[in-house]
Amino acid sequence: MKNIAVVGLGIIGGSICGALTNAGYQVDGFGRSSASVEYALNAGYIRAKGENLSLYDVVFIAVPPRATLEYLQTARFKDGALVCDICGVKSEIEKAVYSQKRNYRYVGLHPMAGKETSGIGSASPTLFKKANLIITHAPQTRREDVNEVKQYAFAMGFGKIVECSAEEHDKKIALTSQLAHIVSNAYVKSPQVRGCDGFTGGSFQDMTRIAGVDEQVWTPLYASNRENIVRELSGLIDNLSAYRDALSAKDDEMLSALLREGRLIRETIKRRNN
Amino acid sequence: MKNIAVVGLGIIGGSICGALTNAGYQVDGFGRSSASVEYALNAGYIRAKGENLSLYDVVFIAVPPRATLEYLQTARFKDGALVCDICGVKSEIEKAVYSQKRNYRYVGLHPMAGKETSGIGSASPTLFKKANLIITHAPQTRREDVNEVKQYAFAMGFGKIVECSAEEHDKKIALTSQLAHIVSNAYVKSPQVRGCDGFTGGSFQDMTRIAGVDEQVWTPLYASNRENIVRELSGLIDNLSAYRDALSAKDDEMLSALLREGRLIRETIKRRNN
Repeated sequence: MKNIAVVGLGIIGGSICGALTNAGYQVDGFGRSSASVEYALNAGYIRAKGENLSLYDVVFIAVPPRATLEYLQTARFKDGALVCDICGVKSEIEKAVYSQKRNYRYVGLHPMAGKETSGIGSASPTLFKKANLIITHAPQTRREDVNEVKQYAFAMGFGKIVECSAEEHDKKIALTSQLAHIVSNAYVKSPQVRGCDGFTGGSFQDMTRIAGVDEQVWTPLYASNRENIVRELSGLIDNLSAYRDALSAKDDEMLSALLREGRLIRETIKRRNN
Repeated sequence: MKNIAVVGLGIIGGSICGALTNAGYQVDGFGRSSASVEYALNAGYIRAKGENLSLYDVVFIAVPPRATLEYLQTARFKDGALVCDICGVKSEIEKAVYSQKRNYRYVGLHPMAGKETSGIGSASPTLFKKANLIITHAPQTRREDVNEVKQYAFAMGFGKIVECSAEEHDKKIALTSQLAHIVSNAYVKSPQVRGCDGFTGGSFQDMTRIAGVDEQVWTPLYASNRENIVRELSGLIDNLSAYRDALSAKDDEMLSALLREGRLIRETIKRRNN
């Protein structure tokens, strides 16, 4: 059986460990802090603390983008090892991987799962259950490598797995993840927010759940996908301005048309995802 | 025991019926369609189809704002009946109620509960469980009437109950409910949305859950709270523009500061609500 290493024992890394261990794989963990390694051992997520990364057949790198780049560019991997990262931006990572000489096989991953909290205390072997997984590949990616990754992904419990280029990933994720975090982070800045205990329902909770992004993690993520995010942000600002203008002008017919337009789009999303 | 009527058998009206019936009250339902009355009878939400509104001690009006206004201004209620509406805007309703001669006692309600679907098929006797309820009152509102309403509210399962003026309600709800629906409705208008099956996680789902607002219900709601919503929308647009400008200018320090600001506010909300 192949031996697996997971580098980074946060919410994603810890969950990969737990999910693969539960599926019967042998998984060792590399954590920056001894506390997270202890946690992973006690929780039964890993077999042992990893010592030498170059001994593993499969390596999942589950650290922030800059640290991921450093691993992919400077770490010593076993010859022919399968190495996957889990970063939320992919073009920059791929560029770095493919522009260097390397002795490992690379496949990019982006698990569409998470919580509004972080750290291994938020990890769970079932975090990926039925979640979407995006696998990115370049012209040089080999089919058998993708298939091997899929085998681990299904073992982790992922539901739908989609494959695309890093560029397509970054374009779509700008909308489905990165813009959402900015909107949520901006939403709580209303002066009204401080007095609204008891005035909230599910809508407000949904809108603000992910507002508490860690700026140290997200700023470089945004910087790596700048153009796509600026385009999505500009589009949303234009769209919001249309509602504001209709309201200001007391043009209820226009307001109704704008709401209807959004409702009809929403209905097509619902139909597709059911 | 007082007999209770609920006018309007949609998701909210149906849930009021079911919750009060389960708590041991005698509740009759007035529905526009015989199908919704049949549904309420079969589900055990109501004792009977209501026939004459002027026979009831307590009346909950659970129809859209315009129809609510019509009831409050023209329906025949029993002398001294306690009449509550559940509209999402309150100033306009209160103004209409208090500017007329009337033989009933009025208390405004806004249950902060709902789903992204509507109709009695979405109703549930437990919809209000632990939800927030806002009770609005004017200088002329009597304490004993509010206390009577609270008794029904606790029976329905509400958690936190807050009381405020209609003006304060409308100001806060512009942020916590109405703005959220506009943002969600605008969010799905990105051209990227059509190809993002499999590229979504919880963030996108939360952001777009309530996008499918019924424009016929929401346009008049927005129109009744125009100034507050325009102010919230303008504030959000300004805040979003700050992130866009920082991204465009490659000012990562500013971007990080903006994200941090939102995170710190988010943490104060979390602390208060725990």
